[in-house]
Amino acid sequence: MNKEGLVLVISGPSGVGKGTVVKELLKSQDEFAVSVSATTRNPREGEQHGKDYFFLKKDEFVDLINNDKVLEYATYCDNYYGTPRDYVEQTIQTGKNIILEIEVQGALQVIKSCPNAVSIFIMPQTLAVLQDRLTGRGTETNDVIAKRMHTAIGEIKQATKYNYVVVNDSLDDCVNDIKQIIKAEKLRTIRMENFVKEVLSNV
Amino acid sequence: MNKEGLVLVISGPSGVGKGTVVKELLKSQDEFAVSVSATTRNPREGEQHGKDYFFLKKDEFVDLINNDKVLEYATYCDNYYGTPRDYVEQTIQTGKNIILEIEVQGALQVIKSCPNAVSIFIMPQTLAVLQDRLTGRGTETNDVIAKRMHTAIGEIKQATKYNYVVVNDSLDDCVNDIKQIIKAEKLRTIRMENFVKEVLSNV
Repeated sequence: MNKEGLVLVISGPSGVGKGTVVKELLKSQDEFAVSVSATTRNPREGEQHGKDYFFLKKDEFVDLINNDKVLEYATYCDNYYGTPRDYVEQTIQTGKNIILEIEVQGALQVIKSCPNAVSIFIMPQTLAVLQDRLTGRGTETNDVIAKRMHTAIGEIKQATKYNYVVVNDSLDDCVNDIKQIIKAEKLRTIRMENFVKEVLSNV
Repeated sequence: MNKEGLVLVISGPSGVGKGTVVKELLKSQDEFAVSVSATTRNPREGEQHGKDYFFLKKDEFVDLINNDKVLEYATYCDNYYGTPRDYVEQTIQTGKNIILEIEVQGALQVIKSCPNAVSIFIMPQTLAVLQDRLTGRGTETNDVIAKRMHTAIGEIKQATKYNYVVVNDSLDDCVNDIKQIIKAEKLRTIRMENFVKEVLSNV
């Protein structure tokens, strides 16, 4: 059938555990790869170009933006951060699904710039569960947690802009749900068109 | 989450084995039900109203059409045949997925009249396989088979109007593919909106 991998946008509020979900998916190295971001900040000790980040000069990054070569970007502390389109497209050509683990603002940009991307919003079972997780880290004051909850609620309000909503109640179930989505998405007509053409080519 | 079942349109060319696939799905009686058609033809010996068909008078059927109460219909030998909307909607309210096993013209009508329906086109692996199956029945002349192949090719050309394309190479794989699609479809945002609202209702 179609050998191309999927562009998988995995997003959700802070504290929902999307990092753990992505780490679990990446255990299937043959199936999944993770996107490498570009940035204009300086490399830190031990960071490798093309592995941790693509380290670019500011004018190089602006060129990417102007040529529609980033799927999303943002600025933070005077530096650009973004997802280079070419790296994503080259990776799916190898047949792997590329994971973009990304916060909500960036995800909404990718949903627009890459219409074939499969976007998944990871939800907590309840807000109380999310609050427990944020509190459980034990590293933040009540004020900081209240602020994060406020942000999280704003993010959850964007959930309906994604293709799928998956609940991270149990890690295994959540990862399985995502794998089911991937299998079904590969059977979507848009990805089976070449097969249909191939069958008809023998007429 | 969302307890409503799916409206599942299962279609494909004659000879592709969609009847066998549907029979296999229906073994899970808790999950699946099959749609009951309405018709204006007379009941045959042993046929039960509401089980084999809903037997209607012509003016009753025309009323259904005029009130947008059939998802699709056709006439055959001066009789109407069609899929009543109310029966479909009542069935999905029980949580079961309702299967509409339907030929291509009818399926294309349902895709329009019921935008939330999940439409699946079952494909043969190759045209040669389909021809073998049609020949294998051993009941038809070459002329009839050639005519059916011609029709099948016309139907396959409509495959891209469906949501999904599934290959019936092995029955088990085909049935599994459909079950994966159902699981993923239940996680589609449109079916998770109530859950998102519920989570946010505790703010």
